[in-house]
Amino acid sequence: MINQETIVALATPSGAGAVAIIRLSGNEAITIASSVFESVSGKEISNQKTHTIHLGHVVDNGKVYDQVLISIFKNPYSYTGEDVVEISCHGSTFIQQQIIQLLLRKGAKMAQAGEFTLRAFLNGKLDLSQAEAVADLISSDNEASHQIAMQQMRGGFSNEIAKLREELLNFASLIELELDFAEEDVAFADRKQFAELLNRIEFVLKRLIDSFAVGNVIKNGIPVAIVGEPNVGKSTLLNALLNEERAIVSDIAGTTRDTIEDELVIEGIGFRFIDTAGIRETSDVIEGLGIQKTFEKIEQAQVVLYLIDSTQCTVSQLNNLKIEIEKIKNKFPQKPVVVVANKADVTSTEQKNSIQLIIDHIVFLSAKEKIGIDELKTTLLSFVNTGALRNNETIVTNTRHYDSLIKALEEITKVRFGMNHNLSSDLMAIDIRQALFHFGEITGQVSNDELLGNIFANFCIGK
Amino acid sequence: MINQETIVALATPSGAGAVAIIRLSGNEAITIASSVFESVSGKEISNQKTHTIHLGHVVDNGKVYDQVLISIFKNPYSYTGEDVVEISCHGSTFIQQQIIQLLLRKGAKMAQAGEFTLRAFLNGKLDLSQAEAVADLISSDNEASHQIAMQQMRGGFSNEIAKLREELLNFASLIELELDFAEEDVAFADRKQFAELLNRIEFVLKRLIDSFAVGNVIKNGIPVAIVGEPNVGKSTLLNALLNEERAIVSDIAGTTRDTIEDELVIEGIGFRFIDTAGIRETSDVIEGLGIQKTFEKIEQAQVVLYLIDSTQCTVSQLNNLKIEIEKIKNKFPQKPVVVVANKADVTSTEQKNSIQLIIDHIVFLSAKEKIGIDELKTTLLSFVNTGALRNNETIVTNTRHYDSLIKALEEITKVRFGMNHNLSSDLMAIDIRQALFHFGEITGQVSNDELLGNIFANFCIGK
Repeated sequence: MINQETIVALATPSGAGAVAIIRLSGNEAITIASSVFESVSGKEISNQKTHTIHLGHVVDNGKVYDQVLISIFKNPYSYTGEDVVEISCHGSTFIQQQIIQLLLRKGAKMAQAGEFTLRAFLNGKLDLSQAEAVADLISSDNEASHQIAMQQMRGGFSNEIAKLREELLNFASLIELELDFAEEDVAFADRKQFAELLNRIEFVLKRLIDSFAVGNVIKNGIPVAIVGEPNVGKSTLLNALLNEERAIVSDIAGTTRDTIEDELVIEGIGFRFIDTAGIRETSDVIEGLGIQKTFEKIEQAQVVLYLIDSTQCTVSQLNNLKIEIEKIKNKFPQKPVVVVANKADVTSTEQKNSIQLIIDHIVFLSAKEKIGIDELKTTLLSFVNTGALRNNETIVTNTRHYDSLIKALEEITKVRFGMNHNLSSDLMAIDIRQALFHFGEITGQVSNDELLGNIFANFCIGK
Repeated sequence: MINQETIVALATPSGAGAVAIIRLSGNEAITIASSVFESVSGKEISNQKTHTIHLGHVVDNGKVYDQVLISIFKNPYSYTGEDVVEISCHGSTFIQQQIIQLLLRKGAKMAQAGEFTLRAFLNGKLDLSQAEAVADLISSDNEASHQIAMQQMRGGFSNEIAKLREELLNFASLIELELDFAEEDVAFADRKQFAELLNRIEFVLKRLIDSFAVGNVIKNGIPVAIVGEPNVGKSTLLNALLNEERAIVSDIAGTTRDTIEDELVIEGIGFRFIDTAGIRETSDVIEGLGIQKTFEKIEQAQVVLYLIDSTQCTVSQLNNLKIEIEKIKNKFPQKPVVVVANKADVTSTEQKNSIQLIIDHIVFLSAKEKIGIDELKTTLLSFVNTGALRNNETIVTNTRHYDSLIKALEEITKVRFGMNHNLSSDLMAIDIRQALFHFGEITGQVSNDELLGNIFANFCIGK
């Protein structure tokens, strides 16, 4: 699969900025860069040390393309493990294009999406789960997903898998040794130690598999639906929840991020408000949803905020509301429904009491006066089990890893069954090999072109 | 004006990419970077040589922000002339923000627009016209404007001005010396040599001032209007002119540029088709412009393409057309009007001949069959005097420089008048000083905070 051509791509985001970086990787990287570079010092970059920077001009046929800095990374001390040259040029899209076209003419090939990281993997600089973490890291837009990707990229997850795999591999060797001496009926592998190991592996696998629930939530954000009658203040609540964060985001000039519309980050966990097109209008009158429409909206959510106007609730209305909420809870037993009573600042204590008599666990707030918003955020956060995150445990966020872990666990369960029922070593050996195979899939010790193609196609070009 | 604080900004375009660069400049740049950086080698970056790169992690309070490369540039060997550190981190907007916020907490200040280049100017790394060329270089989107900006950034223009200024300064000193010996009526400054110098200066100034016409065109593109009756094929012509270039632009993945809608680049010169909203529709029926509307459109243009359908021209229509074109030429005597006869592929030779009898200098083409498009491009190019560009002469593109050159020329004219009329040395000395002042404005030997503020406010942050 490894390709000997020298590849080139823009490594920085496209568009105009102060600086852009064009990256070359491959055997010819330094030769190609050298052929278009005239250093100010007059030195040849091919004679320069790794990890040094050189000022000069990109020149070809007497035409000066730009004044640039060239950084040299000699194999294996580079991201890809190959010779790498980074050209830091002025950030005009015209210059970027001109220099890339020039390098293509000089023999470089345009890099495919993720090809730099693919080469890093193929050259053993990263394992597969670390390579996948690079893409997660780049796309992470909140604290929690960033921390998980960082941990995975630094090898936290791989180490955990590698340790289990090594121990299992030892036992597999001993058991396979028994096969060679099958007629003598010896047992090289201590069955008691092996049972302990299987316990440990099962325990870790189950924890990792369980972590996927929170990992998935962290990676993709938690979808939240805000429902309720017209004019109870849904748009005001949404703005109250979102506003503060917006201000922080736009605080640092030059780093305005492409915010996901209507995403709220609470203690690093993303909450996405879904289907807010209707309620983002200044008035939410238009959103008179029937129960059917409400159900459809809740279908997509993981948490439901049911907003009412606490100044507008007669006892009979509250009883109807109670019935409607029961309907939702029956239909979606897994989804927490938080009843939020708005306009609490202008609601009498008697009224509040009578509401609380009928509706349990109600949250009072005033969206307009921003009273009780923090409490609502705490309530939202309580639906996420962030324990694993706080304890810095490995959290699985990748569906591919999750699938392999599930399959590995199935094999381990078979191995345990075999051992408990005194199955012959050769049958157990097959199941152990299968478990090892699935461990290997995660870190990439087992891989194939199609799998790699799928994984790296999701990278951006230049990474 | 110079500010001792260490500044920080994102230097690469905002948005997600493989890599982003955060740049620090100032006395504390290395100290601040060092306080949040743990190198993989364990080395302290403050002890490292200039122009070296170091792999490690941005860490604060035990929290790992990212794996990064740090490039060190020690003063004066940096862009700004100060200590500079560039942090190359993963290109997620979240990470960019997090690291910038961390550096701000560690004592860096957010850079103002253009502040890095302003510091480079204040520290004598660039003169003012070179600094201005940096912004031009980043915003250049075609070959010609790119080459002019490169030449100016590399000091071509400054050198020309500096040489004249130095010679003039020599004479000014001699003439001022005469003032000290005023009573003795000596002439230290050779009047004949001085006259020659003034000639030379006038010649250069006039050439530079004249170059502004082409410089301005190159910098901003030439506005072209396509006018004509409905259904003569205006949209087809526009597409035929633009299509090829579009394909080239989108050829290199990752470098899609923000094309100016309806801009055509011919041999590096940009032509902007104005007010094309109407004719970009699939059919141009809707654009039945009256003569008044047509005049308004031509008002904004520098070149006019008047499109007719050569299959649909009776002699009386052609005579009317001739009258209308005369009206346009009378109203806008400076603007070339090119009459373009479309559908030439299905027009008989007799018909073509009868058209040519009535309308001079007509260009026949077929927009649909793309016949004659290159000839039309050559015609468009002929309206630009690209001689200066081809001869690598200095071309003035900046209005500020143009103004200073005009003022300098006025002063030189006064000096010459004074010399021809034997005015006293002290009066001439004042005019020479004024001319020197205007030369100095261009390169920044003469500047003030307001001027610098205006110039650098147009830069992007991070440059």
